[in-house]
Amino acid sequence: MLSLLFLVAAALPQTAPQGATAPADPVIADWRAVPDDELLVMTLANGKQVVIRLAAAMAPAHVGNIRTLARKRWWDAASVYRVQENWVAQWGDATEKKPLPAGVTDRPAAEFEIANFSPAVRMAQADGYSTASGITADGWPVATNGTQAWLTHCYGMVGVARDALPSTGSGAELFTPIGQSARRLDRNYTVVGRIVEGMQYLSALPRSEAAMGMYATPGERVPIAKVRLASDLPAGERPHFQYRSADNPRFAAAVARRENPEAPTVSLGGATVCDVLPAVRRTP
Amino acid sequence: MLSLLFLVAAALPQTAPQGATAPADPVIADWRAVPDDELLVMTLANGKQVVIRLAAAMAPAHVGNIRTLARKRWWDAASVYRVQENWVAQWGDATEKKPLPAGVTDRPAAEFEIANFSPAVRMAQADGYSTASGITADGWPVATNGTQAWLTHCYGMVGVARDALPSTGSGAELFTPIGQSARRLDRNYTVVGRIVEGMQYLSALPRSEAAMGMYATPGERVPIAKVRLASDLPAGERPHFQYRSADNPRFAAAVARRENPEAPTVSLGGATVCDVLPAVRRTP
Repeated sequence: MLSLLFLVAAALPQTAPQGATAPADPVIADWRAVPDDELLVMTLANGKQVVIRLAAAMAPAHVGNIRTLARKRWWDAASVYRVQENWVAQWGDATEKKPLPAGVTDRPAAEFEIANFSPAVRMAQADGYSTASGITADGWPVATNGTQAWLTHCYGMVGVARDALPSTGSGAELFTPIGQSARRLDRNYTVVGRIVEGMQYLSALPRSEAAMGMYATPGERVPIAKVRLASDLPAGERPHFQYRSADNPRFAAAVARRENPEAPTVSLGGATVCDVLPAVRRTP
Repeated sequence: MLSLLFLVAAALPQTAPQGATAPADPVIADWRAVPDDELLVMTLANGKQVVIRLAAAMAPAHVGNIRTLARKRWWDAASVYRVQENWVAQWGDATEKKPLPAGVTDRPAAEFEIANFSPAVRMAQADGYSTASGITADGWPVATNGTQAWLTHCYGMVGVARDALPSTGSGAELFTPIGQSARRLDRNYTVVGRIVEGMQYLSALPRSEAAMGMYATPGERVPIAKVRLASDLPAGERPHFQYRSADNPRFAAAVARRENPEAPTVSLGGATVCDVLPAVRRTP
């Protein structure tokens, strides 16, 4: 059939893509568990689930807020209230006026950047938004300008919406890029995680033509039934996920293969970090 | 409200973005008409229209095929039969077996590349997929490796699906990236245009979980009522579009502003070509 051989999906698949050589395939040891308290499960009123892996070590203050918000059930009856074409889907309190619960710090110190740039695999080429980038051992996309380091706003990453600086937000209002990667938000917004399952329940929502893609009427909003940390769910409902680690030669080979595909496919010998996010899967 | 001030849309808007200075605003002379025979109007069975600007000068053989396919009404009763999360939406003949009409050249000479790299505005930074890129006077995103030049697979650009090389396809099966830009397809597929209206009617379609995102059942497919060149539509139904030209200091200033946003927003002093596609609008 037309296009099947070459139009393979954008993220590195769990199994070897076309023309892969065996050494690049992940082995059991490459898969590592995502801690249950670093997994946020958002259940929409329609029953669909969006699962977010939290970057707990990268943005501890905002992830701390998010854990508290989930435990206080702050998002129950919240909604996805903004879906802007080729930009973002955003959820939380549509009125953006609901008081934050005790224990949540509004406008904590900025976490727009991370402590250091130490990827396990580096991309071969720079991009328009950083001088170097790569994937950390535990699977996060990071970039640097040679001085600061940060998590990148790839498609499906989760950022903290905020008002004008110096506001840093709180974590109560979250967004994810649903079009081209939103790299120009790097270092300007806090990245708190990555959607690892159910992205299509946000990316395929109807776009709003209203200002900033805010749904113009309450009826357009997509109700959220509940948001919980996996660790707070009953054992029977608790999902378990694994990420493909990057600190091994198999992942490095997979990235190199993406940067230098086999002939007759041509390339510059590069790819962007958003195009090599490691696979995440439910624990078999 | 949270996030309104900074989370502005990804494409350069027709009106000045936040903090714009007057000289960067387009003036009447910057808007140029898209010829009616370079505008393809795809009407879905649900009545929604997707309007594609054709890159007639960049891929003449494939655009020639597309014009013939439209005039022969080849796509009438075709469908959008593939929607793969964070990858592409693809349309045409779902069986991929329907014979091409007379006058359509199957597998014409490859048009993966264009004659030369001559943008009106160059991006300040290289990216992972090209050593230089920019926007041509007539608004097309182009890139180069220093030797070859090509149109880039940005979100919303339209490419020609094909079988394994040496197949070049025909133009009968088309796709558009609906997630992160699909730049790794650059120089491997023929780009024939850009969706300038109605992208949301493709990008928000339900994703398929089946192999390659092909809809598993005919019932999932999104029927296409008809596809016509605007020039072949009755005057009363014919849309007219204008694109914002790039060969003027106002567009150059808008790109520079996107690469170097006003403080307190920080940047590397760069952006990617897919993030500065010129606005296209219905003729006022």
